[in-house]
Amino acid sequence: MSELAGYKGRSLKLLEDFHVKVGDTVQITTKGDSAAFSDNYAGIIMPRYENADDKHVVLKVDSGYNIAIELGRIDKISAMEQKPTKNEKSEQKIKADSKLPKLLLLSTGGTIASKIDYRTGAVTPTLTAEELNNSIPELAEIANIETEVLFSEYSENIMPNHWLEIANKIKNVIQEDNGYHGIIVAHGTDTMHYTSSFLSFSLAGCPIPIALVGSQRSSDRASSDAALNLIGATEFLVKCKTNGIYVVMHQDENDEVIACHLGTRVRKNHTSKRGAFQTIGGDPAFLIINNQIHNNKKTDFFSNNKFEPKIALDEKVALVKYYPGFDPEILQNYIQKEYKAIIFEGTGLGHVGKNMYSIIKSANEKDIFIGMTSQCIDGRVSMTVYESGRDLLNLGIIPLEDMIPEVALTKAMWAAGNSKNSQEIKKIMLNKIASEISK
Amino acid sequence: MSELAGYKGRSLKLLEDFHVKVGDTVQITTKGDSAAFSDNYAGIIMPRYENADDKHVVLKVDSGYNIAIELGRIDKISAMEQKPTKNEKSEQKIKADSKLPKLLLLSTGGTIASKIDYRTGAVTPTLTAEELNNSIPELAEIANIETEVLFSEYSENIMPNHWLEIANKIKNVIQEDNGYHGIIVAHGTDTMHYTSSFLSFSLAGCPIPIALVGSQRSSDRASSDAALNLIGATEFLVKCKTNGIYVVMHQDENDEVIACHLGTRVRKNHTSKRGAFQTIGGDPAFLIINNQIHNNKKTDFFSNNKFEPKIALDEKVALVKYYPGFDPEILQNYIQKEYKAIIFEGTGLGHVGKNMYSIIKSANEKDIFIGMTSQCIDGRVSMTVYESGRDLLNLGIIPLEDMIPEVALTKAMWAAGNSKNSQEIKKIMLNKIASEISK
Repeated sequence: MSELAGYKGRSLKLLEDFHVKVGDTVQITTKGDSAAFSDNYAGIIMPRYENADDKHVVLKVDSGYNIAIELGRIDKISAMEQKPTKNEKSEQKIKADSKLPKLLLLSTGGTIASKIDYRTGAVTPTLTAEELNNSIPELAEIANIETEVLFSEYSENIMPNHWLEIANKIKNVIQEDNGYHGIIVAHGTDTMHYTSSFLSFSLAGCPIPIALVGSQRSSDRASSDAALNLIGATEFLVKCKTNGIYVVMHQDENDEVIACHLGTRVRKNHTSKRGAFQTIGGDPAFLIINNQIHNNKKTDFFSNNKFEPKIALDEKVALVKYYPGFDPEILQNYIQKEYKAIIFEGTGLGHVGKNMYSIIKSANEKDIFIGMTSQCIDGRVSMTVYESGRDLLNLGIIPLEDMIPEVALTKAMWAAGNSKNSQEIKKIMLNKIASEISK
Repeated sequence: MSELAGYKGRSLKLLEDFHVKVGDTVQITTKGDSAAFSDNYAGIIMPRYENADDKHVVLKVDSGYNIAIELGRIDKISAMEQKPTKNEKSEQKIKADSKLPKLLLLSTGGTIASKIDYRTGAVTPTLTAEELNNSIPELAEIANIETEVLFSEYSENIMPNHWLEIANKIKNVIQEDNGYHGIIVAHGTDTMHYTSSFLSFSLAGCPIPIALVGSQRSSDRASSDAALNLIGATEFLVKCKTNGIYVVMHQDENDEVIACHLGTRVRKNHTSKRGAFQTIGGDPAFLIINNQIHNNKKTDFFSNNKFEPKIALDEKVALVKYYPGFDPEILQNYIQKEYKAIIFEGTGLGHVGKNMYSIIKSANEKDIFIGMTSQCIDGRVSMTVYESGRDLLNLGIIPLEDMIPEVALTKAMWAAGNSKNSQEIKKIMLNKIASEISK
């Protein structure tokens, strides 16, 4: 971690002037021009993100909150306790224990992929094996973890090209046969379930377990779930005796249960809770309780355990959520852009309004695969119950069972990348590959 | 109910030839050309929907399932028990009990809005007060229910214009002051929560309670929830002593608990379960258990109880679900079509990828209101936690607290219909009107 991580320009100069650095406990005296704030702030200087402005110094105060103090208000910064600099610090080099299983940790970004400094609670974006083992000593007792930074992106910025990069990396690692027992993919939580489902299809039959792990609370908060999720994933990969792609996160608000969700049946269902990820329509495949694994899974993750990676996709696939007032003409764009597939998030059992019929007919005539999922999220589409559903079937829409809309999207991108026409896409979409359809 | 409801052409002629009608218990003998099916089917002749083909006769068999038998296979239909025809049947005319409170039932379509014939389980699309009271005798013991058919649409075909029609009807009824204690709106379930939220805004301050009621299982199934939901809504309106817009449905699979959800905090979260509707982020406002009302609600439904109906909307509002690979150019259409507002279903705390920034900037410059909700559905957006959120705030996106995406859509349509520019829309969107924002 850089001693002045993220500070630049004026803010960097100020810290240098007062001979303080990230991690130091300091007192900042302000010019006191506002009665609403006290004139002194005690706290630890926090690192800043790369794109942060140069107009503030951020302090972690006793309450655990971070506050940003504008440079113009700062009169003086006095060091109360200096953090040892890198050279002074006696870093314990944790030795690999050859009797323990070997895991690979691939870091893609997000809070989880960052080094956690327990003193400052600070997050820094690079991660080496040593730093990881130093920050979460429990890990080294379970497995030898080798790490590699693939890229460093918040998951809202992860694009289908990143999925390909992760999938190719895992494919190569497995084909090189380096003796890894499993692979952890550290990933931001926002789109972790999109990535896990893409990996599930593109790495079908993958012989070792893959665990995507994130953290819901940034590591600079006392309630961070980063360390426990990583420990849970490590336990899981070492002990699960199965393969497949999983998302490993807190089961709920407490720290006792870590849930391992099927990578194609999971969704982020809460913006901020630690137990935000949920298996849709069932229990998590595994639970880790007090270092013990509880298996709820009755069947293999993959329908076929022969490893046949197909790392390709076509981004010309749209996920379209229908709602009253939805303008059918919007779909004309997808037709003009020669999209390969449209996945509807219909209402209820899989419906859209009659005003959509004409554009759906046009899309169908252009050999665009049109699949139906439900915005209800839970439950199966069933398009023979009501006339609307039967009308849509007649227009060529393919009901996608109980596939989660986001999973149907990634599967369709993958299917389109591996198909020549809508009939081939249809065949792939209806073929259960990686537990994406229940029953 | 017509004696040959829905039958036409060849199928109508066949029933007439064998002197049988809808509701009769019959035995159908087929030509037995397929070994997979038996040659005799016993069951009750079911009515058919208006747009059904004329090639089948539909029987409700003992298992409770409906089967369609192709005309070409039918050799003979023998009546085993004839349903009394209308004239023979001694219809009990239920008299209004002047001591009971008066309710209005507006029917808009969907399964619930249809007459339920307990014998055939058949559904017919028109509903008179007498028919209703005859089919669910419990209702007449709770209230005097007057009914009116507004229109008859499956709810996937309900459009914003229908919302206006319902809202105007309710506004007029209330302003005429006819002494109604409350109003039931029978509605298909697919988009019931969109309608309930639009009514919540457009009828702000509405002095009497409104209950939207649907049924998840069509009434020709033994597990139908139609009658119990209607009884629950009637109990609720008579006893709740409050105002507001509610969705009244089964709480779960059993018949003991009916839940009354706030009309702006509810979502259809399962395609088929009877307990498909859930209050997001909390308990239902009221529960009806054994005819008793349990109130979980701490505050008034409306922020202001002065009845100020504003029945207007502008459909130029889009709900846009972001996902990895979403094509930013699609938004160009909304800009070109001079949309008034775009509501994002972002990821996590309210994010979209960096590749969206440029188009969002363009939309903002065209005075389009851009609001952010989360596709997590549950939880609050919070756009100051991560850089992505702060970037989006700088681009002019307005975080919409914990408003459900569908509710943010209807509110924005309503706000756009009552505003001159994006600043006015913003002011309305951030002003809590009808419990749409928690806390």
